[in-house]
Amino acid sequence: MSDSIIENVRLVKPRVHCITNYITANDCANILLACGASPIMADCPDESAEITSLCSALVINLGTPNTQRLEAMLISGKKANELGIPVVFDPVGTGASCFRTDFALKLLSEVRLSIIRGNLSEIRSLAGTSSNQHGVDTTDIISDASIQSAAELARELSLKTGAVIAITGETDIVADSSSAYCIHNGHMIMSSITGCGCMLSALMGAFSAVSEDILKAATEAVTAIDVCGETAARQLLPHEGNISCRNRLIDAVYRLNKEALTSSANIEKL
Amino acid sequence: MSDSIIENVRLVKPRVHCITNYITANDCANILLACGASPIMADCPDESAEITSLCSALVINLGTPNTQRLEAMLISGKKANELGIPVVFDPVGTGASCFRTDFALKLLSEVRLSIIRGNLSEIRSLAGTSSNQHGVDTTDIISDASIQSAAELARELSLKTGAVIAITGETDIVADSSSAYCIHNGHMIMSSITGCGCMLSALMGAFSAVSEDILKAATEAVTAIDVCGETAARQLLPHEGNISCRNRLIDAVYRLNKEALTSSANIEKL
Amino acid sequence: MSDSIIENVRLVKPRVHCITNYITANDCANILLACGASPIMADCPDESAEITSLCSALVINLGTPNTQRLEAMLISGKKANELGIPVVFDPVGTGASCFRTDFALKLLSEVRLSIIRGNLSEIRSLAGTSSNQHGVDTTDIISDASIQSAAELARELSLKTGAVIAITGETDIVADSSSAYCIHNGHMIMSSITGCGCMLSALMGAFSAVSEDILKAATEAVTAIDVCGETAARQLLPHEGNISCRNRLIDAVYRLNKEALTSSANIEKL
Repeated sequence: MSDSIIENVRLVKPRVHCITNYITANDCANILLACGASPIMADCPDESAEITSLCSALVINLGTPNTQRLEAMLISGKKANELGIPVVFDPVGTGASCFRTDFALKLLSEVRLSIIRGNLSEIRSLAGTSSNQHGVDTTDIISDASIQSAAELARELSLKTGAVIAITGETDIVADSSSAYCIHNGHMIMSSITGCGCMLSALMGAFSAVSEDILKAATEAVTAIDVCGETAARQLLPHEGNISCRNRLIDAVYRLNKEALTSSANIEKL
Repeated sequence: MSDSIIENVRLVKPRVHCITNYITANDCANILLACGASPIMADCPDESAEITSLCSALVINLGTPNTQRLEAMLISGKKANELGIPVVFDPVGTGASCFRTDFALKLLSEVRLSIIRGNLSEIRSLAGTSSNQHGVDTTDIISDASIQSAAELARELSLKTGAVIAITGETDIVADSSSAYCIHNGHMIMSSITGCGCMLSALMGAFSAVSEDILKAATEAVTAIDVCGETAARQLLPHEGNISCRNRLIDAVYRLNKEALTSSANIEKL
Repeated sequence: MSDSIIENVRLVKPRVHCITNYITANDCANILLACGASPIMADCPDESAEITSLCSALVINLGTPNTQRLEAMLISGKKANELGIPVVFDPVGTGASCFRTDFALKLLSEVRLSIIRGNLSEIRSLAGTSSNQHGVDTTDIISDASIQSAAELARELSLKTGAVIAITGETDIVADSSSAYCIHNGHMIMSSITGCGCMLSALMGAFSAVSEDILKAATEAVTAIDVCGETAARQLLPHEGNISCRNRLIDAVYRLNKEALTSSANIEKL
């Protein structure tokens, strides 16, 4: 095994079970294949636990929720806990509807999560911190001035849940209850691509599947997608836009290696 | 505020709630981001009204219908009416099954629609005009000879429903009960891209969210996608096909500005 | 009518009803349009039979199954049998869960299938041959040494079901109860694209819609996607990856003609 998580993903080719929304499921499957993992999508309660038991990580994404899919998330989450495999939770739109917020809190109370990744609104909503923002898209961005308070929020939610917390946006924070990192990579155009967050959560599934160190896995996954977003933005031709950037981003993950990741990473310990 | 709707979309960044099919949901989300709007996809009756109330427009798309999704459409449609935000309806496949036709007529009777956009078959099906065609893909195309009769059909359905009617295909008609326009832009290859109609309906959601003049919003949205389709077709390399054209089209929306739109528009008042 | 199936698809433009998963539905729709066919996606039991009756072929894909979608598959499968139109079955993930395996066996017993296309694990699962593999992604690949045994498996399942059997992977086998072919085309990178199998099954729907000779239709569809995969891989630029390859593959289908297909085909009669 290498000390590089991306290299280990390519070596081990972990199976990752995604229970995810239908908007970005194709992108999530392709980015998992791009990093060397093997995606399985299955969201029916009748088979959910059985599929989880074939996998090395579970990714639960709250986009386009419905009653059946939520039931599958609980069943698979509990099965993953039983098996001791990591569970990544992406609380898409938590705070935007009671249906999502209530479920997210229920999941937090019934399933032990390894990583929770959301934007600032979503994480605030889970933490019970008041917010005047409604989730789904990041409008409350982490500014340089608010990095410390965002890191504090992440630390608190980590303490409460036991999960590594990633708050992503223009600036990204990854923290557990004792350590926090700020990742200064990424590019503005990523906010114009649907599913950048979903794809990152999928990557976190693959990365945590091959690493005992969940904080490191989450941090490296954030850095990986950010560095690939920078590559994609740099390659963009004058007539190209957000879809080409999405394509180039996934392609960049396909080509990503340890050296490129290490040399481009701009990670600050807080 | 500018007199250009696309500029206002980029300025206001309206949230658009889409209840849509899973075939083209990713493309719809990305084209909304490309024009500067912010998509929210949610199709569960348990949260549908709450999501609508966060948004400035609602887009209802009848592709891949199921009982739950249809229920969400009615709930959100009524909520949008209550809030006074525009509702765009894309009756995908109306006429192809009783399930779709019956629902479409029910929606027409229970929800006040701002824009209805379909191909000739679908619009005929809603208008109760006999048709020997089955919906989903446009096989009955508006020819030069039939522009006037298509415009008449649009005017009649507008009179009946109060909505602006857009009949799109090789030639596009946009009309309300008193005025009708023919848009002579667009490119044949657009009929080989799945979801061109869905993407246009999504754009209409964003455009109508920032304009009091719904007829103008619908006309400018049709013109915008057509002009971007022309740009995409012109940029296509000899080995490229429909998927590259789809990508280039969304990219072109990302790059579209008022000047390019105005100089390329070929709109005829009927 | 030409003796080339791809040319006949472009001529006839058959409507193909797909009941398929939401991960790759967009790609399936676009590859059908690329080859000249006209896709209709509909997975609700309330309209499924009616949609099938408008079409010239039915494609049933077992990815992301749920109770409603499975019900629609049975209803549409029986309607297709009644109408005498071909039914292609893609048993995605059979063997990975009892839910999928049980349904697949039920479908086999209640619907007469024209083509079954899967990877080696999935076909073994349907044949009741013991396997230590779990479906969804191909990990047990047909090697040169195992071509004959894979062909034997295909022949046996064909004898049992009456369907043409396609086992695809690095090497592809297409067989009925009396003849078997090995297609030596394709490229490794295709295994890093989500939905290559789904897209092939969709193509098989279009090809079988215009050909009396189902074995020929299945063989030509496999060859077509493999040759287009080779074209895509050859065109790939150094910074490009799996998503660009997917795009180039669909584009290549859009450009594919009889001559390119014939000159590149590497088909061995077993």
